[in-house]
Amino acid sequence: MPATILYYTPNSCSLASHIALEQAGAPYEARRVDFSRSEQRSPEYLRVNPKGRVPALVTERGILTETPAILTFIAQSFPAARLAPFEDAFSQAQMHSFNSYLCSTVHVAHAHRVRGSRWVDDPGAIEAMKKKVPDSVGACFELIEREMFQGPWVMGSAYSICDIYLFTLAQWLESDGVDPQRFPNVADHRRRMAEHPVVARAMAAERAS
Amino acid sequence: MPATILYYTPNSCSLASHIALEQAGAPYEARRVDFSRSEQRSPEYLRVNPKGRVPALVTERGILTETPAILTFIAQSFPAARLAPFEDAFSQAQMHSFNSYLCSTVHVAHAHRVRGSRWVDDPGAIEAMKKKVPDSVGACFELIEREMFQGPWVMGSAYSICDIYLFTLAQWLESDGVDPQRFPNVADHRRRMAEHPVVARAMAAERAS
Repeated sequence: MPATILYYTPNSCSLASHIALEQAGAPYEARRVDFSRSEQRSPEYLRVNPKGRVPALVTERGILTETPAILTFIAQSFPAARLAPFEDAFSQAQMHSFNSYLCSTVHVAHAHRVRGSRWVDDPGAIEAMKKKVPDSVGACFELIEREMFQGPWVMGSAYSICDIYLFTLAQWLESDGVDPQRFPNVADHRRRMAEHPVVARAMAAERAS
Repeated sequence: MPATILYYTPNSCSLASHIALEQAGAPYEARRVDFSRSEQRSPEYLRVNPKGRVPALVTERGILTETPAILTFIAQSFPAARLAPFEDAFSQAQMHSFNSYLCSTVHVAHAHRVRGSRWVDDPGAIEAMKKKVPDSVGACFELIEREMFQGPWVMGSAYSICDIYLFTLAQWLESDGVDPQRFPNVADHRRRMAEHPVVARAMAAERAS
């Protein structure tokens, strides 16, 4: 049995870690956390991840949480897959910057549609939050399209974990009420990513789970 | 004139980058962005950082944004200061995990008191959001105190950029309506950090600006 276990749930940001493990050629087991039965709040899962969220990556050294950290760790553990520009401190910092923006701003803007109760109790306010999601998520992707995306990959000529993470969050555009065609570079990137056999395999595994 | 410029505003998360530059012994110039005059939205500043936020770090290689990325870059550029465990991939991942939690969850919980209009337009909903901040920020620090803080520093015996970042966000506890004494480890850490001459110098520079 592989020592590495990824805890994930479909349609969540854990897809990024799933794709990265596939792309790295890592031996791992993927275990679904069933959110429909609130399994993420079960005593068993809280022992794995006290935050009650996915992803969580069980490694031989211990358990890691938070997508940017897991992606960086996978890239560093499987250098042959060349998933991060570790040879250059500034490029590495740009990679961390992009991933930080995704986790702290883009994912958070999206979460106001589906997880509003994290930040407010009033049901009317939760509904009011949902109304702004198309604007706030749209503004994030506009900035990515215009200022951050270098092309053909996020960081330019070199493919990296930034591509995996961007692709993962771009899956939510339609349900967030944002037309993906507003962002031609991101839309084209998403199409190319989805066609990659490794990405398709990770997505199929999650759909079948 | 130093090639490195930090754009900051007092009482914001840019204090972390400010302290890290001091601690690294880096030559830099600190430039205040005046939020009271919405300078962060001026055409001049948007050319530096199209996100209209602080911090932004101008380096010889280009401009960096997002606190976790700037802190990692400073630590990597000044290895003698020993601000990050770059010798070990797993420790490094734990560092990224902690910093990701601070930017994507702790800072975001706090921002619902002061920047609610990022996520909702309705004035009543903005007020409703403020009510939950003591709970949501309190829950974050409870998790840090109980599950993440290893002691005497965040990552155990080795001081790191995680300490600088935690200290920075812990400054907001009182104004977020959270009693810092609920978290003895974090409170003691904050006291020790504040006494450090380098930390005191960065804070004094921001107060005097």
